[in-house]
This record gives sequence, C-alpha cells and structure tokens, in this order.
Amino acid sequence: MQARFITVEGGEGAGKSVFTQGLSQALAIAGIPVVLTREPGGTPLADGLRELFLHPPEGDKPTAITELLIVSAARAQHVATRIGPLLERGSWVLCDRFYDSTRVYQGSLGGLDSAVLEPIIACSVGNCHPHLSFVLDCPAELAMQRITAREKAKGRDQEVLNRYDGGSQAMHQQLRSAYQALAKKFPERIVLINAEETPEKMVQGAMHAIRERWNI
Amino acid sequence: MQARFITVEGGEGAGKSVFTQGLSQALAIAGIPVVLTREPGGTPLADGLRELFLHPPEGDKPTAITELLIVSAARAQHVATRIGPLLERGSWVLCDRFYDSTRVYQGSLGGLDSAVLEPIIACSVGNCHPHLSFVLDCPAELAMQRITAREKAKGRDQEVLNRYDGGSQAMHQQLRSAYQALAKKFPERIVLINAEETPEKMVQGAMHAIRERWNI
Repeated sequence: MQARFITVEGGEGAGKSVFTQGLSQALAIAGIPVVLTREPGGTPLADGLRELFLHPPEGDKPTAITELLIVSAARAQHVATRIGPLLERGSWVLCDRFYDSTRVYQGSLGGLDSAVLEPIIACSVGNCHPHLSFVLDCPAELAMQRITAREKAKGRDQEVLNRYDGGSQAMHQQLRSAYQALAKKFPERIVLINAEETPEKMVQGAMHAIRERWNI
Repeated sequence: MQARFITVEGGEGAGKSVFTQGLSQALAIAGIPVVLTREPGGTPLADGLRELFLHPPEGDKPTAITELLIVSAARAQHVATRIGPLLERGSWVLCDRFYDSTRVYQGSLGGLDSAVLEPIIACSVGNCHPHLSFVLDCPAELAMQRITAREKAKGRDQEVLNRYDGGSQAMHQQLRSAYQALAKKFPERIVLINAEETPEKMVQGAMHAIRERWNI
C-alpha cells in the first residue's frame, strides 16, 4: 500500500491527543498500522528543541522569528531523519501538528508575514508535504474548559502550563479562525473535524474522509 | 561615541578566544569599553540552542539545514534581545562569531547554497549588520596543533571535542579558504588577521584597522 502522511492540527484543548490515538487505533483495526509522532519533536534533537520552545529559560521569551526558526529546525530534523525515511519505506505516518501550526501560531498569532514564513517552511520540509490534514475545529470556550479540566486532572496549577495553554479566550478564538482560514485555503488537503462531537464521532468522521480518498 | 558592532571570525584553533579577549582589553585601554559576547549563544535561550548544536543527542546528528535553522534561531534571539538593544544604547559590541560562520560552516562546509542560506540569515538579523569583522587567517596545520595543545591542557581526550574541533586537515583547509573567499567578497567590512603572528601583534593589527576607520 502506498505510504501516506497525515497530520492533525488544532488549537490547545481541541482534543488532538485523544483524537490522534483514536485514529491510530481505528487505522490499525482497518489493517493499516501507522507510526505516531508529534511536533515540535519526533527525534531526540527535535525533542530538545521542543523543550526550549515550550519552556524557554526565565526572562528570555523567544521572539516570533526565534520561535519560527526553532520549530523549523525541529521540523527539518524530523522530516529528514524520521518522517521522510518512514514514508520511503512505505509506512503511514500520523503526526500531531505540522507546518499548519507554524502558519497559525507564528503567523496569525505571532504576527509574521507569509513572505517570512513560507520560504523557511519550504526549506525545512523540502518535498515532504502531508497528503491529508485534519483540523479539529473547537469553540474557544470549550477549548478553555478542556484545558482547565486536563490540568486539574494532572494536579497541576496554572503556573506550569506551557505558554499557549494559559492563553486568553481571544487567543483561542484567533487560533480557531486562523485554522478555519487555512482549511479554506487548502480545501483539497485539509478536512475540518467538529471538535464538539465525541472522540468516537470525530474518529469516525476522519476514517470516512480517509476511505473516501484512498482505497482502504 | 557612535555604537559599533565588531565580529571576530575564523576556524577552530585560529586563536579567536585569546584575540577577542586581547582586543577587548586594548579597546578598554583606549577608552572604549566593549560588551563581549559570542555565537551561537549570548542569551540563556540561545545558549540552550548552542548546547544542542555543539552536543546533539547521540545518534541524532543535525542535518545542514537543521544546523542552519538552529544557529539562526539563536542569532535571531541574540540580535533582538541583546545586540540590538546594546547598540541602540550606544555600546560597542564585540562578538565571537556571527553570520560569516554560518556562510562558512553551513554553506561551504555543509553544502548549503547561498539561495538557501541568505534569506534565513537576513530574516535572523534584520538590519543588524557588523560594521567591521576580523577573520583570523590560520594555516590548517597550525590550527590542528593548537586544538590538540588546548585540549591536552584541559585534560580532555578527543572524544569530548565538539563536532568541528575533531575535524580533518582537509576540513580546516576548507574553512580557511571559505573565510578567505568571504574576505574578498566583503572587502569593506572584513579585515584578515594573520593568525601565525603572536596574539599581541594580531591585536595591534586589529587596533590599527579600527583607528584607521574611526576616530578613536
């Protein structure tokens, strides 16, 4: 079977982790084992970059350009040494976040123009583009409720949230709108998934979209 | 007095550290205190990136593109949060390595074309360009002798050298040629310093070049 590269995108609290796990299981049941990975990260070096990105040293918050270059460095390594070789061997790869996150977080949210973003994204991925991307479309209020519930379940207080988890409702709304705009821009590649549904329904929707495209 | 941004460049073992310290002292004696800094690094976040760059996790050597993006991320942070603000306050800044290192190490040595390098360099530095750059021009044999002597003095064995210190003679020769080519390309900005001279002579040469340019 032909290798496929699928990405999962969405703001904080949209339910990406549960969805990604569920989709991976549903694909396995359908006879398609997938390799799960995530960004920023996916290799030891990229994971080191992820840590600096999510938890920068105190008092040294990265600028939007620095963020763009850190996540792109991690992506370049991930693509060249892991995703690319997996696809070449015929594997299916399911990645939690990819370059649409950069467009949304460093672009729409960070204020970087696409004239700055796109050449760097292009240089980090080469010819490795997702065949299909699911964007979990989630209202800001629901996203914030889920983040609070998740952190309470982990016994954490607000201070150890990463820089985005603790964002305002306006930030969550901006993320959602930016993802919706991307879905309009790349209608062939991006499928919106209603994140107000149950995880089971969301995975069913994704499997339907996969079956519609490819003969599995 | 007008702020000045001076960089020091050269291959491993060319004597950059001793030269940079000596030049900083000579400038201080001439009534010009300078802020010393270095790349990759110069801020806590950039220092974290430096550590990943010089000592990547075992088995996950960065590709040339990953290297380019890591050092550019560190540079973007360094320029935006430290070098830029220092220059705006009128300080002189003396930086051990800057973007010429990227051109030489990731470009000539790493095989990246300037069409890939230059847009990323431009995005990381904005309008912050060195007024003057000293390139320490050192024969490969001498560079290798100095690295061996330095590491012995530190009681280290070869295994803990960073990825470039342990390079072959051909690598050191390639670095030197690439720096010489840059000096030809940017003759107004780059001054070659003969690294076979004593540190005192090298600093004298640099001070002469500074006095020739600026009224100090």
